[in-house]
Amino acid sequence: MAKTESKKKVVLAYSGGLDTSIIIPWLKETYDVEVIAFAADLGQNDFPNAKALEEKALKTGASKCYVLDLKKEFLEEYVWPTVRAGAKYEGTYLLGTSFARPLIAKYQVKIAEKEGAYAVAHGATGKGNDQVRFELTYAALNPKLEVIAPWKDPRWTFHSREDAIDYAAAHKIPLNGISKKKIYSEDGNLWHLSHEGGVLEFPEQEHKYEFLKHTNTYEKAPNKADHVTISFEKGNPVAINGKKMGAVELLEFLNEIGGKNACGLLDIVENRLVGLKSRGVYETPGGTLLYKAHECLQQLVLDKETLFEAQKMSMTYANLVYNGQWFTPLRQAMDAFFNEVNKVVTGEVTLKLYKGNIIPAGIKSPYSLYDMGLGGFTDVDMYDQKDATGFIRCYGLPLKTRALLLGKKTNVDFGGVPSLKK
Amino acid sequence: MAKTESKKKVVLAYSGGLDTSIIIPWLKETYDVEVIAFAADLGQNDFPNAKALEEKALKTGASKCYVLDLKKEFLEEYVWPTVRAGAKYEGTYLLGTSFARPLIAKYQVKIAEKEGAYAVAHGATGKGNDQVRFELTYAALNPKLEVIAPWKDPRWTFHSREDAIDYAAAHKIPLNGISKKKIYSEDGNLWHLSHEGGVLEFPEQEHKYEFLKHTNTYEKAPNKADHVTISFEKGNPVAINGKKMGAVELLEFLNEIGGKNACGLLDIVENRLVGLKSRGVYETPGGTLLYKAHECLQQLVLDKETLFEAQKMSMTYANLVYNGQWFTPLRQAMDAFFNEVNKVVTGEVTLKLYKGNIIPAGIKSPYSLYDMGLGGFTDVDMYDQKDATGFIRCYGLPLKTRALLLGKKTNVDFGGVPSLKK
Amino acid sequence: MAKTESKKKVVLAYSGGLDTSIIIPWLKETYDVEVIAFAADLGQNDFPNAKALEEKALKTGASKCYVLDLKKEFLEEYVWPTVRAGAKYEGTYLLGTSFARPLIAKYQVKIAEKEGAYAVAHGATGKGNDQVRFELTYAALNPKLEVIAPWKDPRWTFHSREDAIDYAAAHKIPLNGISKKKIYSEDGNLWHLSHEGGVLEFPEQEHKYEFLKHTNTYEKAPNKADHVTISFEKGNPVAINGKKMGAVELLEFLNEIGGKNACGLLDIVENRLVGLKSRGVYETPGGTLLYKAHECLQQLVLDKETLFEAQKMSMTYANLVYNGQWFTPLRQAMDAFFNEVNKVVTGEVTLKLYKGNIIPAGIKSPYSLYDMGLGGFTDVDMYDQKDATGFIRCYGLPLKTRALLLGKKTNVDFGGVPSLKK
Amino acid sequence: MAKTESKKKVVLAYSGGLDTSIIIPWLKETYDVEVIAFAADLGQNDFPNAKALEEKALKTGASKCYVLDLKKEFLEEYVWPTVRAGAKYEGTYLLGTSFARPLIAKYQVKIAEKEGAYAVAHGATGKGNDQVRFELTYAALNPKLEVIAPWKDPRWTFHSREDAIDYAAAHKIPLNGISKKKIYSEDGNLWHLSHEGGVLEFPEQEHKYEFLKHTNTYEKAPNKADHVTISFEKGNPVAINGKKMGAVELLEFLNEIGGKNACGLLDIVENRLVGLKSRGVYETPGGTLLYKAHECLQQLVLDKETLFEAQKMSMTYANLVYNGQWFTPLRQAMDAFFNEVNKVVTGEVTLKLYKGNIIPAGIKSPYSLYDMGLGGFTDVDMYDQKDATGFIRCYGLPLKTRALLLGKKTNVDFGGVPSLKK
Repeated sequence: MAKTESKKKVVLAYSGGLDTSIIIPWLKETYDVEVIAFAADLGQNDFPNAKALEEKALKTGASKCYVLDLKKEFLEEYVWPTVRAGAKYEGTYLLGTSFARPLIAKYQVKIAEKEGAYAVAHGATGKGNDQVRFELTYAALNPKLEVIAPWKDPRWTFHSREDAIDYAAAHKIPLNGISKKKIYSEDGNLWHLSHEGGVLEFPEQEHKYEFLKHTNTYEKAPNKADHVTISFEKGNPVAINGKKMGAVELLEFLNEIGGKNACGLLDIVENRLVGLKSRGVYETPGGTLLYKAHECLQQLVLDKETLFEAQKMSMTYANLVYNGQWFTPLRQAMDAFFNEVNKVVTGEVTLKLYKGNIIPAGIKSPYSLYDMGLGGFTDVDMYDQKDATGFIRCYGLPLKTRALLLGKKTNVDFGGVPSLKK
Repeated sequence: MAKTESKKKVVLAYSGGLDTSIIIPWLKETYDVEVIAFAADLGQNDFPNAKALEEKALKTGASKCYVLDLKKEFLEEYVWPTVRAGAKYEGTYLLGTSFARPLIAKYQVKIAEKEGAYAVAHGATGKGNDQVRFELTYAALNPKLEVIAPWKDPRWTFHSREDAIDYAAAHKIPLNGISKKKIYSEDGNLWHLSHEGGVLEFPEQEHKYEFLKHTNTYEKAPNKADHVTISFEKGNPVAINGKKMGAVELLEFLNEIGGKNACGLLDIVENRLVGLKSRGVYETPGGTLLYKAHECLQQLVLDKETLFEAQKMSMTYANLVYNGQWFTPLRQAMDAFFNEVNKVVTGEVTLKLYKGNIIPAGIKSPYSLYDMGLGGFTDVDMYDQKDATGFIRCYGLPLKTRALLLGKKTNVDFGGVPSLKK
Repeated sequence: MAKTESKKKVVLAYSGGLDTSIIIPWLKETYDVEVIAFAADLGQNDFPNAKALEEKALKTGASKCYVLDLKKEFLEEYVWPTVRAGAKYEGTYLLGTSFARPLIAKYQVKIAEKEGAYAVAHGATGKGNDQVRFELTYAALNPKLEVIAPWKDPRWTFHSREDAIDYAAAHKIPLNGISKKKIYSEDGNLWHLSHEGGVLEFPEQEHKYEFLKHTNTYEKAPNKADHVTISFEKGNPVAINGKKMGAVELLEFLNEIGGKNACGLLDIVENRLVGLKSRGVYETPGGTLLYKAHECLQQLVLDKETLFEAQKMSMTYANLVYNGQWFTPLRQAMDAFFNEVNKVVTGEVTLKLYKGNIIPAGIKSPYSLYDMGLGGFTDVDMYDQKDATGFIRCYGLPLKTRALLLGKKTNVDFGGVPSLKK
Repeated sequence: MAKTESKKKVVLAYSGGLDTSIIIPWLKETYDVEVIAFAADLGQNDFPNAKALEEKALKTGASKCYVLDLKKEFLEEYVWPTVRAGAKYEGTYLLGTSFARPLIAKYQVKIAEKEGAYAVAHGATGKGNDQVRFELTYAALNPKLEVIAPWKDPRWTFHSREDAIDYAAAHKIPLNGISKKKIYSEDGNLWHLSHEGGVLEFPEQEHKYEFLKHTNTYEKAPNKADHVTISFEKGNPVAINGKKMGAVELLEFLNEIGGKNACGLLDIVENRLVGLKSRGVYETPGGTLLYKAHECLQQLVLDKETLFEAQKMSMTYANLVYNGQWFTPLRQAMDAFFNEVNKVVTGEVTLKLYKGNIIPAGIKSPYSLYDMGLGGFTDVDMYDQKDATGFIRCYGLPLKTRALLLGKKTNVDFGGVPSLKK
């Protein structure tokens, strides 16, 4: 490996795919730099062998290649907190791409600091959210690093897949498996797989979802239901069907059983942070089971007011994660809130999975606030139905006074009721 | 009909069922009053013929019986506004019982005013939410009316179904179809049917849902999907499959097709306003389709910030409806907000219904903000990917400054990463 | 001291005033119990000598009297967290009475447990908020204790001050200093003094505030301003004018200088939890300075989004404290949030105090995010004014697209402008 | 007036000051365009005579000059809605500059459309909020107009006041009254006057406020208080001291009396949308009186829950106005909410003004919900103190059950209490 000692270094978020491959020679030609590739294994479906990936990067012109398995950290430090927060962007999207970016960017920064690089580079375009997530993380963690974003660079001239492939061929970049045609773009990790663009760009059309990779279509799911029991401790999933599992094993298990039963398919139009609306199809089989189970458990253990405020804050949390604001004081403060709320989210939830349906089939918790009939407390004077009379009289007093003071009357015209008799 | 001219009058919310039937003689015996029955037809599954119901009430001892068909008003004035608000209690429950109560109570008040009654009476117990919804409405609409709630009256002595049936028999109340055994309680109207109590009181158990009345179980739903297209104008559903329909006809259609395909079944533990948690199973086939279609349309026409605030306010709206606070200034103010938001929620949504799954299969709107690639505006300088550079530099500036001013560094220990190479 | 061994015990929240004094013999007569008095020293203006108070309680018929100095705990565990949260009820009231009640009730419970008492009693009426604050705390901390609230007891027959004084005289209760006439009611502690009722019950009238005890009227405040510098660590006040002080000493100092300069007077109409609106005048001289200084410091150290969410949550926090929900999971979760937010609220704030005005006169913090002109970072490419172009183009893109797609035009009639020329 | 028929037209937001004056020749030289000046009279302190301003613009090189008196529209359509919303940015700033910009930009767009101009231009820099407010309005109202912002143009070369003055002199721009030295920047209109920059850029320093123009310093305010009574109809101010006044006359009156009494001075550090924190001193004498009076009236007429939600939404409204998002669907929806809320904000408020203090001195409303003692309703069974018992038992039931189910005990160490006796 020829290492150009005297050149400035750039650390590139590298995947081994076409786009980030051609960035390596382009960076060297355009910026006259040494390029250090960094690939994060977050459980992408097709993540290659680390050794093979390193070799490819070096052949492509990188001076070094870091390949890090970040799956455990990804789940425990990024995904689980978001599950604990119950955060779904715009009420639906489970944020699979959103929280992967800050983690990758964090390690880019760390490698840049270790290697003495002056810049970091990424392959996200100027139209989407990912650029924001990368660059905000760089700004928060090391504001002195320069940022190179080839897609937004005036000297970047590849505007079609064909251009890129020609350039790759000219630079002897291994092209195994990369075809000139790609119907839509994908982004995947252990948590999810997203599909965007191409034929999906027409919300007025129905889709057949024949492109799904982890999830059966509803029609192909088995005719017999599966059951799965997920155990939580303080809001974190810790066991499946009574067996303790690490985060990675646990999610892989849920992905398998969820995908088999066609669970966790999402087809939405969402508001991007930069640019406009986008239409995406998301496969999040295991993640959807986790959210559902966590919600069922919360119903059992949280009081009305805590649940209400937690659900409102979930929306803000989701917004922050989606917008790339992971490394912010507000996210940290909301995590503190949700950690406290989740102290009682311990227990187990059995879900029945059947052709896309996720049906609660047993919820238990030592912190359950559910009590049928208050029957257990024979030694305590808990409640008398007559208490409700006082309650409602107090609760309704402002309304009553308002009606009296303001002389309010029913202002609906009685004559308009169709079948009024007598 | 013998009418006791000289007695004070009470208007009772009457259903013809066992509980409200025995209240008629009980009120006469206990309060020495004339009882005027009022039954609201909200599309209950088993709502009897108006004439038969009136006869039953008179036989049971009422001096008069009003039977009003309120289905249209129920949908247009109570249900549609709640759909427009996207309000789901605790994120899930579609409020079917909640918004029926204020409507019934409003007509009780109107009849009481017309008849010169001094009091209104209802058959809700002292443990649940319905008493609050009835009594808050009375307070808001006519604070001078007295409220009689037999279940909370110290003189009420029926504490089992058997007691009630014995009393009914002794008072010659027609008991056709009423059995001594009832496994759980139901409440229904055109919008939904709820099941509570009995075997459902054990969240740790799985249920077979063999008690469903409007909705197929997932397993029994057809193997072939149905498609349905719902048109909205300003957030209100107005047509199905291109055919204009009145509210009642429209919802009946959706109930039929939704129920057939096992859509809209909900099994939750919820926090009551009065008392504790309760576990309920809800069938809302047509309503669930409406919510889903409305959400799909909103995704297409609302900008990010409006959608965010609308979704936050939905939660408050749901809370208010659930808590019986329909006739309040806050609900009116929120309606004004949602009416404004819904001015662009016009268009049509096709849903594919398949074994419990409700899948978007085509969304269109003249107010769509979705635009693929900004391609249509060739005469306008819409966007340059380089704009994003400036955007992110501004957007991330506070983070960058913070990092510089506070000297923040990545505080994750790099050594802890498992497979760090080089 | 004669102790009746065989009787059941009640622990009474006792102040030595008329109301709680007559409760002692009344409890003994009505419930045939032993009464244990408990007085909490929270820094009430007129809190008597502990020994004298104990003697009075025993003379009045208590079997024991606990007198606890809770000032430090009150400030550090109840007041400081509320200041850190920036919580003001309905945007104005500094919650002085609200957070005192849970503390008193907590110690009542502890004493009841230690003494083996079966019940706790308080002297709050059935019209106000305090009864809720007492009784919710009992419920949360020891749900098995019975609650005796004489004012809501059907056997309580004192409905005027005269009745009470006659009863006291008949029971030989020392009446030193208690007069038959009292213009309005007061509640005080180290944090505040409230005035309610009597002449204050007419919001349409102007008041002269001649009843103030800690605070000068604006007119009587000195003509020369004072300055005071308050130091905070993580949101907690720790020093005055550079001198470290304990919580009690610190607040006493601020009360003195704030009161002298007519700071912290509040005259509002507020919405009670139980019942209706009330009108109150509050003196909170030192507390108002603390809130103001804390706000000034937050302006310097919190970013836009954290400040926004913190200010929204402040309102919920204030509501909870006001409503007596101190010992709830939601308050704990919000405290976790605010503790995190306050990690950077360290620094010092100088305030100029002049005739009721509290004017910032110097704010410093090691965590300051204020930077004039970004001038300090000569080695970093912080910001170019041209970045703003890209920012606004991205930020405004949804509006622009909306205008293009929906064909929106300025819909204001230009002709209506009065002085349009040319 | 020489009009170059063949050139493209630009409409410039023009003030007559140095900055916008030099933009006229600069635009002509740089873009080879015809410049149409537009000056909006919003009640700026020093707004010149319309004829003189027009002459100056023409002498400076404009082909035309529109001078429009927009004061009435400014107050009624921009300021009053914001007052009704109770919106204060970050809880304090009364948004004086923020809502002026969209109004000016709206008329620029209208003039551009009338004149057939292809572009609009403004003189705001790339560091502040005003550029956003201008440009978002252009985007929302006419997305096809090009935007020229000289300060962000690479060809703009004036980076000091001296440069600008030299350029002005070389182009024979009248410089009457413009000096080379300016200590800080000001922005004013009928609502407020802001001061930023220069000596104010040191939050750690105390300021003497000798630069105030509309407001007396606290020390110089009269020793005798003034009283003023403001009448509102549906949240809008309509009369002073019983005399109906138009919006402009009314605010001028309040500015006079408020300024005289040193009311409405604000000194804060705020978070800008673009860029970082800024420190500003604001004079808003009349506006501050209006907000205070509106708040006092709301306290009297709004119920607890409506007030709570309105106050939360105020914060979002303020954020939107500050961020330049006036012409957005969300602002319109929030206006609908606040219009509904303000339907009862009718009445009159007397304020006592004394050396910076604004003291409520009489509040009246036909919609008042304040009722002392519920005394007026002798014929209605309003409330019994015993109702409160039931209320609290219901209200506290979840806490009680939680304590029983979870076995919660007071977890505070009793031994730690300092003076525990007995």
